Amino acid sequence: MGTTAEPVRGYIIPVGGAEEKIGDVAILRRFAALCDSGAGRVAIIPTASALEDTGARYAEIFTGLGTREAIVLPIESRSDCARPEVLDTLDRADGVFLTGGNQLRLSTMLGGTEVAKTLRRRNREGMHVAGTSAGAAFLCEHMIAFGKEGASPRARAVTLAPGLGLTNRIIIDQHFRQRDRLGRLLTALAYNPFAIGIGLDENTAAFIGPDETLEVVGGGAITVVDPSDLQFSSMARVRKNDPVCLINLKLHLLDRGSTFHLHTRVAAAALVIAERVSGSHHAYP
Amino acid sequence: MGTTAEPVRGYIIPVGGAEEKIGDVAILRRFAALCDSGAGRVAIIPTASALEDTGARYAEIFTGLGTREAIVLPIESRSDCARPEVLDTLDRADGVFLTGGNQLRLSTMLGGTEVAKTLRRRNREGMHVAGTSAGAAFLCEHMIAFGKEGASPRARAVTLAPGLGLTNRIIIDQHFRQRDRLGRLLTALAYNPFAIGIGLDENTAAFIGPDETLEVVGGGAITVVDPSDLQFSSMARVRKNDPVCLINLKLHLLDRGSTFHLHTRVAAAALVIAERVSGSHHAYP
Repeated sequence: MGTTAEPVRGYIIPVGGAEEKIGDVAILRRFAALCDSGAGRVAIIPTASALEDTGARYAEIFTGLGTREAIVLPIESRSDCARPEVLDTLDRADGVFLTGGNQLRLSTMLGGTEVAKTLRRRNREGMHVAGTSAGAAFLCEHMIAFGKEGASPRARAVTLAPGLGLTNRIIIDQHFRQRDRLGRLLTALAYNPFAIGIGLDENTAAFIGPDETLEVVGGGAITVVDPSDLQFSSMARVRKNDPVCLINLKLHLLDRGSTFHLHTRVAAAALVIAERVSGSHHAYP
Repeated sequence: MGTTAEPVRGYIIPVGGAEEKIGDVAILRRFAALCDSGAGRVAIIPTASALEDTGARYAEIFTGLGTREAIVLPIESRSDCARPEVLDTLDRADGVFLTGGNQLRLSTMLGGTEVAKTLRRRNREGMHVAGTSAGAAFLCEHMIAFGKEGASPRARAVTLAPGLGLTNRIIIDQHFRQRDRLGRLLTALAYNPFAIGIGLDENTAAFIGPDETLEVVGGGAITVVDPSDLQFSSMARVRKNDPVCLINLKLHLLDRGSTFHLHTRVAAAALVIAERVSGSHHAYP
Protein backbone atom coordinates (compact mmCIF):
# COMPACT_ATOMS: atom_id res chain seq x y z
CA MET A 1 0.00 0.00 0.00
CA GLY A 2 2.74 2.41 -0.84
CA THR A 3 4.86 1.51 2.17
CA THR A 4 7.87 -0.79 2.11
CA ALA A 5 6.71 -2.80 5.16
CA GLU A 6 5.99 -6.46 4.47
CA PRO A 7 2.31 -7.19 4.93
CA VAL A 8 1.50 -9.46 7.90
CA ARG A 9 -0.91 -12.29 7.14
CA GLY A 10 -4.20 -12.35 9.01
CA TYR A 11 -5.24 -15.15 11.36
CA ILE A 12 -6.55 -18.40 9.90
CA ILE A 13 -9.20 -19.75 12.27
CA PRO A 14 -10.78 -23.15 11.70
CA VAL A 15 -13.58 -23.90 14.19
CA GLY A 16 -14.78 -27.47 14.91
CA GLY A 17 -18.48 -26.61 14.52
CA ALA A 18 -21.21 -26.06 17.12
CA GLU A 19 -19.35 -23.14 18.70
CA GLU A 20 -21.15 -21.41 21.57
CA LYS A 21 -23.55 -18.75 20.34
CA ILE A 22 -24.96 -17.73 23.72
CA GLY A 23 -23.20 -17.58 27.09
CA ASP A 24 -19.41 -17.44 27.01
CA VAL A 25 -19.08 -17.39 23.17
CA ALA A 26 -15.29 -17.50 23.65
CA ILE A 27 -14.49 -18.31 20.02
CA LEU A 28 -16.75 -15.75 18.31
CA ARG A 29 -15.76 -13.14 20.92
CA ARG A 30 -12.06 -13.69 20.23
CA PHE A 31 -12.63 -13.45 16.47
CA ALA A 32 -14.65 -10.24 16.91
CA ALA A 33 -11.89 -8.79 19.08
CA LEU A 34 -9.30 -9.50 16.39
CA CYS A 35 -11.45 -7.66 13.84
CA ASP A 36 -12.08 -4.79 16.28
CA SER A 37 -8.36 -4.14 16.46
CA GLY A 38 -8.89 -3.02 12.86
CA ALA A 39 -11.98 -1.10 11.78
CA GLY A 40 -14.39 -3.70 13.15
CA ARG A 41 -15.80 -4.81 9.79
CA VAL A 42 -16.85 -8.46 9.54
CA ALA A 43 -18.15 -10.12 6.37
CA ILE A 44 -20.14 -13.33 6.67
CA ILE A 45 -20.26 -15.94 3.89
CA PRO A 46 -23.18 -18.30 4.56
CA THR A 47 -22.78 -20.17 1.28
CA ALA A 48 -22.13 -23.59 2.86
CA SER A 49 -25.52 -23.49 4.56
CA ALA A 50 -28.78 -24.31 2.85
CA LEU A 51 -30.69 -22.40 5.56
CA GLU A 52 -32.02 -18.89 4.87
CA ASP A 53 -31.17 -17.26 8.20
CA THR A 54 -27.66 -18.60 8.91
CA GLY A 55 -25.90 -15.41 7.82
CA ALA A 56 -28.32 -13.12 9.63
CA ARG A 57 -27.92 -15.09 12.84
CA TYR A 58 -24.14 -14.61 12.86
CA ALA A 59 -24.54 -10.92 11.96
CA GLU A 60 -26.74 -10.51 15.02
CA ILE A 61 -24.22 -12.28 17.28
CA PHE A 62 -21.31 -10.16 16.04
CA THR A 63 -23.33 -6.97 16.40
CA GLY A 64 -24.19 -8.07 19.94
CA LEU A 65 -20.47 -8.48 20.60
CA GLY A 66 -19.89 -4.87 19.58
CA THR A 67 -18.66 -5.40 16.01
CA ARG A 68 -19.08 -2.13 14.14
CA GLU A 69 -20.28 -3.62 10.84
CA ALA A 70 -21.39 -7.21 10.19
CA ILE A 71 -22.32 -7.71 6.55
CA VAL A 72 -23.81 -10.90 5.12
CA LEU A 73 -22.60 -11.69 1.60
CA PRO A 74 -25.41 -13.63 -0.13
CA ILE A 75 -23.28 -15.75 -2.46
CA GLU A 76 -25.51 -18.43 -3.93
CA SER A 77 -23.94 -19.06 -7.33
CA ARG A 78 -20.64 -18.73 -9.14
CA SER A 79 -21.88 -15.55 -10.85
CA ASP A 80 -22.50 -13.97 -7.43
CA CYS A 81 -18.73 -14.30 -6.92
CA ALA A 82 -18.08 -11.64 -9.58
CA ARG A 83 -20.43 -9.00 -8.11
CA PRO A 84 -18.48 -5.78 -7.42
CA GLU A 85 -20.26 -5.02 -4.12
CA VAL A 86 -19.24 -8.46 -2.83
CA LEU A 87 -15.61 -7.93 -3.80
CA ASP A 88 -15.67 -4.36 -2.42
CA THR A 89 -16.91 -5.63 0.91
CA LEU A 90 -14.13 -8.22 1.05
CA ASP A 91 -11.59 -5.54 0.17
CA ARG A 92 -12.61 -3.47 3.17
CA ALA A 93 -13.27 -6.27 5.69
CA ASP A 94 -11.09 -6.90 8.74
CA GLY A 95 -12.34 -10.46 9.00
CA VAL A 96 -14.45 -12.97 7.09
CA PHE A 97 -16.50 -15.72 8.71
CA LEU A 98 -17.56 -18.79 6.69
CA THR A 99 -20.50 -20.62 8.22
CA GLY A 100 -21.10 -24.36 8.42
CA GLY A 101 -23.11 -26.51 6.03
CA ASN A 102 -21.58 -28.49 3.18
CA GLN A 103 -17.98 -27.78 2.18
CA LEU A 104 -18.71 -28.91 -1.38
CA ARG A 105 -21.13 -25.97 -1.72
CA LEU A 106 -18.19 -23.71 -0.86
CA SER A 107 -15.66 -25.38 -3.16
CA THR A 108 -18.04 -25.68 -6.12
CA MET A 109 -19.38 -22.10 -5.87
CA LEU A 110 -16.27 -20.19 -4.74
CA GLY A 111 -13.48 -22.27 -6.29
CA GLY A 112 -11.50 -20.36 -8.90
CA THR A 113 -13.68 -17.22 -8.64
CA GLU A 114 -12.69 -13.66 -7.80
CA VAL A 115 -14.07 -14.22 -4.29
CA ALA A 116 -11.60 -17.05 -3.66
CA LYS A 117 -8.74 -15.02 -5.10
CA THR A 118 -9.70 -12.00 -3.02
CA LEU A 119 -9.95 -14.09 0.17
CA ARG A 120 -6.45 -15.46 -0.39
CA ARG A 121 -4.94 -12.08 -1.26
CA ARG A 122 -6.66 -10.24 1.61
CA ASN A 123 -5.62 -12.93 4.12
CA ARG A 124 -2.01 -12.45 3.04
CA GLU A 125 -2.50 -8.70 3.54
CA GLY A 126 -3.84 -9.09 7.10
CA MET A 127 -7.55 -9.95 6.91
CA HIS A 128 -8.57 -12.71 9.32
CA VAL A 129 -10.46 -15.69 7.87
CA ALA A 130 -12.50 -17.95 10.16
CA GLY A 131 -14.68 -20.88 9.19
CA THR A 132 -16.76 -23.26 11.24
CA SER A 133 -17.47 -26.90 10.39
CA ALA A 134 -17.73 -27.00 6.58
CA GLY A 135 -16.24 -23.49 6.59
CA ALA A 136 -13.22 -24.85 8.49
CA ALA A 137 -12.75 -27.82 6.17
CA PHE A 138 -12.69 -25.45 3.18
CA LEU A 139 -9.89 -23.14 4.44
CA CYS A 140 -6.86 -25.22 3.42
CA GLU A 141 -5.33 -26.40 0.17
CA HIS A 142 -6.28 -30.03 0.83
CA MET A 143 -9.89 -30.30 1.96
CA ILE A 144 -11.58 -33.38 3.37
CA ALA A 145 -14.72 -33.53 1.22
CA PHE A 146 -16.23 -36.52 2.98
CA GLY A 147 -15.27 -39.84 4.51
CA LYS A 148 -16.14 -42.72 6.76
CA GLU A 149 -16.23 -42.91 10.55
CA GLY A 150 -13.78 -44.93 12.63
CA ALA A 151 -10.58 -44.53 14.62
CA SER A 152 -8.14 -46.48 12.42
CA PRO A 153 -7.24 -45.58 8.81
CA ARG A 154 -8.66 -47.53 5.84
CA ALA A 155 -7.70 -47.28 2.20
CA ARG A 156 -10.85 -45.52 0.98
CA ALA A 157 -11.89 -43.85 4.23
CA VAL A 158 -11.50 -40.30 2.94
CA THR A 159 -12.04 -38.22 -0.17
CA LEU A 160 -9.85 -35.16 -0.58
CA ALA A 161 -10.57 -32.20 -2.82
CA PRO A 162 -8.89 -28.85 -3.42
CA GLY A 163 -9.99 -26.21 -0.92
CA LEU A 164 -9.55 -22.44 -0.60
CA GLY A 165 -5.82 -22.83 -0.08
CA LEU A 166 -4.97 -20.30 2.65
CA THR A 167 -2.34 -22.82 3.76
CA ASN A 168 -1.17 -26.26 2.71
CA ARG A 169 0.60 -26.98 6.01
CA ILE A 170 -2.43 -28.54 7.65
CA ILE A 171 -5.35 -30.83 6.88
CA ILE A 172 -8.39 -29.99 8.95
CA ASP A 173 -11.15 -32.20 10.25
CA GLN A 174 -14.02 -31.03 12.46
CA HIS A 175 -16.70 -32.41 14.81
CA PHE A 176 -13.71 -34.57 15.63
CA ARG A 177 -14.46 -36.22 18.94
CA GLN A 178 -18.18 -36.15 18.26
CA ARG A 179 -18.10 -37.90 14.86
CA ASP A 180 -15.20 -40.34 15.26
CA ARG A 181 -12.96 -38.97 12.56
CA LEU A 182 -9.39 -39.89 13.47
CA GLY A 183 -9.28 -42.71 10.91
CA ARG A 184 -10.21 -40.48 7.99
CA LEU A 185 -7.72 -37.79 9.05
CA LEU A 186 -4.96 -40.42 9.29
CA THR A 187 -5.93 -41.78 5.89
CA ALA A 188 -5.57 -38.28 4.43
CA LEU A 189 -2.08 -37.97 5.94
CA ALA A 190 -1.13 -41.47 4.78
CA TYR A 191 -1.22 -40.39 1.13
CA ASN A 192 1.55 -37.88 1.61
CA PRO A 193 2.80 -37.21 5.11
CA PHE A 194 3.72 -33.63 4.26
CA ALA A 195 0.86 -31.90 6.05
CA ILE A 196 -0.05 -31.84 9.74
CA GLY A 197 -3.44 -33.23 10.75
CA ILE A 198 -5.62 -30.96 12.88
CA GLY A 199 -8.75 -32.57 14.37
CA LEU A 200 -11.06 -30.01 15.94
CA ASP A 201 -13.65 -31.01 18.53
CA GLU A 202 -16.93 -29.10 18.50
CA ASN A 203 -16.86 -25.67 20.20
CA THR A 204 -13.09 -25.61 19.70
CA ALA A 205 -11.03 -23.38 17.44
CA ALA A 206 -7.45 -23.14 16.25
CA PHE A 207 -6.34 -19.50 16.10
CA ILE A 208 -3.37 -19.69 13.74
CA GLY A 209 -1.43 -16.46 13.96
CA PRO A 210 0.86 -14.87 11.36
CA ASP A 211 3.88 -16.46 13.10
CA GLU A 212 2.34 -19.94 12.47
CA THR A 213 1.55 -20.51 16.16
CA LEU A 214 -1.75 -22.33 16.60
CA GLU A 215 -3.58 -21.59 19.88
CA VAL A 216 -6.54 -23.58 21.17
CA VAL A 217 -9.68 -21.62 22.10
CA GLY A 218 -12.95 -23.14 23.33
CA GLY A 219 -14.21 -26.04 25.40
CA GLY A 220 -12.89 -29.12 23.57
CA ALA A 221 -9.58 -30.55 22.42
CA ILE A 222 -7.54 -30.28 19.25
CA THR A 223 -5.89 -33.51 18.10
CA VAL A 224 -2.62 -32.75 16.31
CA VAL A 225 -1.13 -35.57 14.21
CA ASP A 226 2.43 -34.79 13.15
CA PRO A 227 3.78 -37.29 10.59
CA SER A 228 7.18 -35.59 10.20
CA ASP A 229 9.03 -38.61 11.65
CA LEU A 230 6.88 -41.15 9.79
CA GLN A 231 8.95 -44.20 8.96
CA PHE A 232 6.44 -46.06 6.81
CA SER A 233 3.06 -45.72 5.09
CA SER A 234 1.53 -48.68 3.26
CA MET A 235 -0.84 -46.40 1.33
CA ALA A 236 0.83 -47.05 -2.02
CA ARG A 237 -0.35 -50.65 -2.04
CA VAL A 238 -3.41 -51.11 0.16
CA ARG A 239 -6.57 -52.37 -1.44
CA LYS A 240 -10.08 -51.03 -0.95
CA ASN A 241 -11.08 -50.96 2.75
CA ASP A 242 -7.82 -52.56 3.89
CA PRO A 243 -6.38 -51.00 7.02
CA VAL A 244 -3.41 -48.70 6.40
CA CYS A 245 -0.12 -49.31 8.19
CA LEU A 246 1.48 -46.12 9.55
CA ILE A 247 4.59 -46.26 11.72
CA ASN A 248 5.85 -43.50 13.99
CA LEU A 249 3.31 -40.74 14.03
CA LYS A 250 3.47 -38.06 16.73
CA LEU A 251 0.25 -37.19 18.55
CA HIS A 252 -0.67 -34.23 20.74
CA LEU A 253 -4.00 -33.64 22.47
CA LEU A 254 -4.28 -29.95 23.15
CA ASP A 255 -6.80 -28.14 25.34
CA ARG A 256 -7.67 -24.47 25.79
CA GLY A 257 -4.63 -22.20 25.82
CA SER A 258 -2.24 -24.88 24.58
CA THR A 259 -0.20 -24.09 21.48
CA PHE A 260 1.43 -25.82 18.54
CA HIS A 261 3.89 -24.18 16.20
CA LEU A 262 3.28 -25.29 12.62
CA HIS A 263 6.86 -24.55 11.57
CA THR A 264 8.93 -25.91 14.49
CA ARG A 265 6.20 -28.50 15.27
CA VAL A 266 6.62 -27.93 19.01
CA ALA A 267 3.54 -28.32 21.26
CA ALA A 268 3.19 -26.59 24.62
CA ALA A 269 0.58 -26.90 27.35
CA ALA A 270 -1.30 -23.80 28.44
CA LEU A 271 1.08 -22.02 30.80
CA VAL A 272 -1.44 -21.70 33.62
CA ILE A 273 -2.29 -25.43 33.48
CA ALA A 274 1.35 -26.49 33.20
CA GLU A 275 2.17 -24.47 36.32
CA ARG A 276 -0.76 -25.88 38.27
CA VAL A 277 0.25 -29.44 37.43
CA SER A 278 3.95 -28.99 38.17
CA GLY A 279 3.11 -27.22 41.42
CA SER A 280 0.79 -30.01 42.49
CA HIS A 281 1.75 -32.61 45.10
CA HIS A 282 -0.46 -35.07 43.26
CA ALA A 283 1.13 -34.73 39.82
CA TYR A 284 1.81 -38.44 39.45
CA PRO A 285 0.82 -41.13 41.91
CA MET B 1 8.90 -79.52 36.63
CA GLY B 2 12.14 -81.04 37.85
CA THR B 3 14.22 -79.60 35.00
CA THR B 4 16.48 -76.60 35.31
CA ALA B 5 15.26 -74.96 32.07
CA GLU B 6 13.46 -71.63 32.57
CA PRO B 7 9.81 -71.97 31.61
CA VAL B 8 8.80 -69.95 28.53
CA ARG B 9 5.61 -67.92 28.93
CA GLY B 10 2.70 -68.75 26.64
CA TYR B 11 1.25 -66.28 24.14
CA ILE B 12 -1.09 -63.57 25.37
CA ILE B 13 -3.69 -62.96 22.66
CA PRO B 14 -6.21 -60.14 22.95
CA VAL B 15 -8.76 -60.13 20.11
CA GLY B 16 -10.82 -57.03 19.21
CA GLY B 17 -14.15 -58.89 19.11
CA ALA B 18 -16.24 -60.14 16.18
CA GLU B 19 -13.44 -62.39 14.90
CA GLU B 20 -14.31 -64.49 11.84
CA LYS B 21 -16.03 -67.73 12.80
CA ILE B 22 -16.65 -69.01 9.28
CA GLY B 23 -14.52 -68.62 6.17
CA ASP B 24 -10.87 -67.67 6.74
CA VAL B 25 -11.03 -67.72 10.60
CA ALA B 26 -7.39 -66.56 10.61
CA ILE B 27 -7.32 -65.64 14.30
CA LEU B 28 -8.96 -68.77 15.73
CA ARG B 29 -6.96 -70.94 13.32
CA ARG B 30 -3.69 -69.38 14.47
CA PHE B 31 -4.65 -69.85 18.13
CA ALA B 32 -5.62 -73.49 17.48
CA ALA B 33 -2.30 -74.08 15.70
CA LEU B 34 -0.38 -72.74 18.69
CA CYS B 35 -2.23 -75.17 20.97
CA ASP B 36 -1.72 -78.02 18.50
CA SER B 37 2.02 -77.62 18.81
CA GLY B 38 1.37 -78.92 22.33
CA ALA B 39 -1.16 -81.66 23.03
CA GLY B 40 -4.03 -79.82 21.34
CA ARG B 41 -6.09 -79.21 24.47
CA VAL B 42 -8.15 -75.97 24.53
CA ALA B 43 -10.26 -74.83 27.48
CA ILE B 44 -13.02 -72.29 26.86
CA ILE B 45 -14.21 -69.89 29.57
CA PRO B 46 -17.57 -68.44 28.47
CA THR B 47 -18.13 -66.59 31.77
CA ALA B 48 -18.27 -63.09 30.23
CA SER B 49 -21.24 -64.09 28.10
CA ALA B 50 -24.80 -64.26 29.37
CA LEU B 51 -25.75 -66.56 26.46
CA GLU B 52 -26.12 -70.30 27.03
CA ASP B 53 -24.42 -71.54 23.86
CA THR B 54 -21.36 -69.27 23.60
CA GLY B 55 -18.93 -71.86 24.93
CA ALA B 56 -20.36 -74.72 22.87
CA ARG B 57 -20.12 -72.62 19.73
CA TYR B 58 -16.39 -72.03 20.20
CA ALA B 59 -15.85 -75.70 21.10
CA GLU B 60 -17.44 -76.64 17.78
CA ILE B 61 -15.25 -74.19 15.84
CA PHE B 62 -12.04 -75.44 17.47
CA THR B 63 -13.03 -79.06 16.90
CA GLY B 64 -13.72 -78.17 13.26
CA LEU B 65 -10.19 -76.72 13.08
CA GLY B 66 -8.77 -80.06 14.21
CA THR B 67 -8.19 -79.29 17.89
CA ARG B 68 -7.92 -82.60 19.76
CA GLU B 69 -9.90 -81.56 22.84
CA ALA B 70 -12.05 -78.44 23.30
CA ILE B 71 -13.54 -78.30 26.78
CA VAL B 72 -16.02 -75.68 27.96
CA LEU B 73 -15.55 -74.67 31.60
CA PRO B 74 -18.98 -73.63 32.90
CA ILE B 75 -17.84 -71.07 35.47
CA GLU B 76 -20.91 -69.15 36.60
CA SER B 77 -20.03 -68.20 40.15
CA ARG B 78 -17.03 -67.64 42.39
CA SER B 79 -17.54 -71.06 43.97
CA ASP B 80 -17.25 -72.68 40.52
CA CYS B 81 -13.69 -71.30 40.49
CA ALA B 82 -12.66 -73.72 43.25
CA ARG B 83 -13.97 -76.88 41.55
CA PRO B 84 -11.14 -79.44 41.17
CA GLU B 85 -12.20 -80.56 37.67
CA VAL B 86 -12.02 -76.95 36.47
CA LEU B 87 -8.54 -76.47 37.92
CA ASP B 88 -7.43 -79.86 36.60
CA THR B 89 -8.53 -78.93 33.10
CA LEU B 90 -6.60 -75.65 33.30
CA ASP B 91 -3.54 -77.52 34.55
CA ARG B 92 -3.56 -79.74 31.46
CA ALA B 93 -4.64 -77.17 28.84
CA ASP B 94 -2.35 -75.90 26.09
CA GLY B 95 -4.50 -72.83 25.61
CA VAL B 96 -7.44 -71.03 27.18
CA PHE B 97 -9.96 -68.93 25.28
CA LEU B 98 -12.07 -66.32 27.10
CA THR B 99 -15.20 -65.36 25.17
CA GLY B 100 -16.79 -61.92 24.84
CA GLY B 101 -19.62 -60.49 26.91
CA ASN B 102 -19.06 -58.21 29.91
CA GLN B 103 -15.57 -57.92 31.38
CA LEU B 104 -17.05 -57.12 34.80
CA ARG B 105 -18.57 -60.61 34.87
CA LEU B 106 -15.03 -61.97 34.45
CA SER B 107 -13.39 -59.71 37.01
CA THR B 108 -16.11 -60.15 39.63
CA MET B 109 -16.36 -63.96 39.28
CA LEU B 110 -12.72 -64.91 38.58
CA GLY B 111 -10.85 -62.15 40.44
CA GLY B 112 -8.75 -63.51 43.32
CA THR B 113 -9.92 -67.13 42.83
CA GLU B 114 -7.88 -70.24 42.16
CA VAL B 115 -8.90 -70.02 38.50
CA ALA B 116 -7.28 -66.59 38.16
CA LYS B 117 -4.16 -67.77 39.99
CA THR B 118 -3.97 -70.88 37.83
CA LEU B 119 -4.38 -68.88 34.62
CA ARG B 120 -1.51 -66.59 35.62
CA ARG B 121 0.75 -69.45 36.72
CA ARG B 122 0.01 -71.62 33.69
CA ASN B 123 0.57 -68.69 31.28
CA ARG B 124 4.00 -68.16 32.86
CA GLU B 125 4.64 -71.90 32.33
CA GLY B 126 3.71 -71.81 28.63
CA MET B 127 -0.08 -72.02 28.32
CA HIS B 128 -1.50 -69.60 25.75
CA VAL B 129 -4.31 -67.30 26.90
CA ALA B 130 -6.58 -65.65 24.34
CA GLY B 131 -9.60 -63.45 24.98
CA THR B 132 -11.99 -61.71 22.62
CA SER B 133 -13.79 -58.44 23.31
CA ALA B 134 -14.55 -58.51 27.07
CA GLY B 135 -12.16 -61.46 27.32
CA ALA B 136 -9.41 -59.27 25.81
CA ALA B 137 -10.09 -56.34 28.12
CA PHE B 138 -9.76 -58.66 31.13
CA LEU B 139 -6.31 -60.08 30.29
CA CYS B 140 -4.14 -57.26 31.65
CA GLU B 141 -3.43 -55.78 35.05
CA HIS B 142 -5.27 -52.54 34.23
CA MET B 143 -8.62 -53.26 32.62
CA ILE B 144 -10.91 -50.74 30.95
CA ALA B 145 -14.21 -51.52 32.67
CA PHE B 146 -16.27 -49.05 30.67
CA GLY B 147 -16.08 -45.55 29.24
CA LYS B 148 -17.43 -42.96 26.86
CA GLU B 149 -17.06 -42.75 23.09
CA GLY B 150 -15.06 -40.06 21.31
CA ALA B 151 -11.64 -39.49 19.77
CA SER B 152 -10.14 -36.99 22.23
CA PRO B 153 -9.52 -37.68 25.94
CA ARG B 154 -11.79 -36.27 28.65
CA ALA B 155 -11.29 -36.32 32.42
CA ARG B 156 -13.95 -38.90 33.23
CA ALA B 157 -14.07 -40.76 29.92
CA VAL B 158 -12.83 -44.07 31.29
CA THR B 159 -13.17 -46.30 34.34
CA LEU B 160 -10.28 -48.64 35.07
CA ALA B 161 -10.42 -51.73 37.26
CA PRO B 162 -7.96 -54.50 38.10
CA GLY B 163 -7.96 -57.29 35.53
CA LEU B 164 -6.44 -60.78 35.32
CA GLY B 165 -2.93 -59.35 35.29
CA LEU B 166 -1.07 -61.48 32.73
CA THR B 167 0.87 -58.30 31.93
CA ASN B 168 0.88 -54.69 33.08
CA ARG B 169 2.79 -53.43 30.04
CA ILE B 170 -0.32 -52.73 27.98
CA ILE B 171 -3.82 -51.37 28.34
CA ILE B 172 -6.22 -52.97 25.90
CA ASP B 173 -9.31 -51.61 24.21
CA GLN B 174 -11.40 -53.47 21.66
CA HIS B 175 -14.05 -52.85 18.96
CA PHE B 176 -11.68 -49.91 18.51
CA ARG B 177 -12.44 -48.46 15.10
CA GLN B 178 -16.05 -49.60 15.29
CA ARG B 179 -16.89 -47.96 18.64
CA ASP B 180 -14.77 -44.80 18.58
CA ARG B 181 -12.61 -45.53 21.60
CA LEU B 182 -9.35 -43.65 21.14
CA GLY B 183 -10.38 -40.98 23.66
CA ARG B 184 -11.00 -43.43 26.47
CA LEU B 185 -7.75 -45.30 25.78
CA LEU B 186 -5.83 -42.00 25.85
CA THR B 187 -7.58 -41.04 29.07
CA ALA B 188 -6.45 -44.33 30.62
CA LEU B 189 -2.85 -43.61 29.58
CA ALA B 190 -3.07 -40.01 30.80
CA TYR B 191 -3.32 -41.17 34.43
CA ASN B 192 0.07 -42.81 34.35
CA PRO B 193 1.92 -43.01 31.05
CA PHE B 194 3.66 -46.22 32.08
CA ALA B 195 1.67 -48.63 29.96
CA ILE B 196 1.30 -48.87 26.18
CA GLY B 197 -2.19 -48.44 24.72
CA ILE B 198 -3.34 -51.20 22.36
CA GLY B 199 -6.56 -50.47 20.44
CA LEU B 200 -7.86 -53.54 18.62
CA ASP B 201 -10.27 -53.26 15.70
CA GLU B 202 -12.84 -56.01 15.34
CA ASN B 203 -11.62 -59.24 13.71
CA THR B 204 -8.07 -58.25 14.69
CA ALA B 205 -5.79 -59.88 17.24
CA ALA B 206 -2.46 -59.13 18.90
CA PHE B 207 -0.40 -62.32 19.23
CA ILE B 208 2.06 -61.35 21.97
CA GLY B 209 4.84 -63.91 22.06
CA PRO B 210 7.13 -64.86 24.94
CA ASP B 211 9.78 -62.44 23.59
CA GLU B 212 7.27 -59.55 23.96
CA THR B 213 6.83 -59.15 20.20
CA LEU B 214 3.25 -58.32 19.29
CA GLU B 215 2.13 -59.46 15.83
CA VAL B 216 -1.08 -58.34 14.12
CA VAL B 217 -3.40 -61.08 12.82
CA GLY B 218 -6.78 -60.50 11.15
CA GLY B 219 -8.52 -58.04 8.90
CA GLY B 220 -8.36 -54.75 10.83
CA ALA B 221 -5.76 -52.49 12.39
CA ILE B 222 -4.16 -52.24 15.80
CA THR B 223 -3.64 -48.71 17.10
CA VAL B 224 -0.54 -48.56 19.33
CA VAL B 225 -0.20 -45.49 21.55
CA ASP B 226 3.27 -45.26 23.08
CA PRO B 227 3.53 -42.54 25.74
CA SER B 228 7.18 -43.21 26.60
CA ASP B 229 8.28 -39.78 25.37
CA LEU B 230 5.27 -37.98 26.87
CA GLN B 231 6.27 -34.48 27.91
CA PHE B 232 3.11 -33.45 29.68
CA SER B 233 -0.24 -34.75 30.94
CA SER B 234 -2.77 -32.36 32.50
CA MET B 235 -4.63 -35.26 34.14
CA ALA B 236 -3.66 -34.23 37.67
CA ARG B 237 -5.79 -31.12 37.48
CA VAL B 238 -8.54 -31.47 34.90
CA ARG B 239 -12.13 -31.16 36.05
CA LYS B 240 -15.02 -33.44 35.12
CA ASN B 241 -15.48 -33.70 31.32
CA ASP B 242 -12.67 -31.24 30.59
CA PRO B 243 -10.44 -32.28 27.70
CA VAL B 244 -7.06 -33.66 28.75
CA CYS B 245 -3.85 -32.12 27.41
CA LEU B 246 -1.26 -34.72 26.30
CA ILE B 247 1.93 -33.68 24.57
CA ASN B 248 4.21 -35.92 22.54
CA LEU B 249 2.57 -39.30 22.21
CA LYS B 250 3.82 -41.76 19.62
CA LEU B 251 1.25 -43.45 17.40
CA HIS B 252 1.48 -46.52 15.16
CA LEU B 253 -1.30 -47.97 13.02
CA LEU B 254 -0.46 -51.58 12.36
CA ASP B 255 -2.07 -53.98 9.90
CA ARG B 256 -1.81 -57.74 9.39
CA GLY B 257 1.72 -59.06 9.80
CA SER B 258 3.09 -55.83 11.29
CA THR B 259 4.85 -56.09 14.63
CA PHE B 260 5.53 -54.04 17.74
CA HIS B 261 8.03 -54.97 20.42
CA LEU B 262 6.68 -54.15 23.87
CA HIS B 263 10.14 -53.88 25.38
CA THR B 264 12.11 -51.94 22.74
CA ARG B 265 8.89 -50.20 21.57
CA VAL B 266 9.93 -50.55 17.93
CA ALA B 267 7.20 -50.98 15.29
CA ALA B 268 7.78 -52.67 11.93
CA ALA B 269 5.56 -53.04 8.88
CA ALA B 270 4.78 -56.52 7.60
CA LEU B 271 7.84 -57.52 5.62
CA VAL B 272 5.91 -58.49 2.50
CA ILE B 273 4.05 -55.15 2.46
CA ALA B 274 7.18 -53.14 3.19
CA GLU B 275 8.92 -54.79 0.25
CA ARG B 276 5.98 -54.21 -2.08
CA VAL B 277 5.84 -50.54 -1.18
CA SER B 278 9.59 -49.90 -1.44
CA GLY B 279 9.69 -51.77 -4.74
CA SER B 280 6.85 -49.69 -6.13
CA HIS B 281 7.40 -46.88 -8.62
CA HIS B 282 4.36 -45.19 -7.13
CA ALA B 283 5.53 -45.13 -3.52
CA TYR B 284 5.07 -41.40 -3.18
CA PRO B 285 3.67 -39.06 -5.80
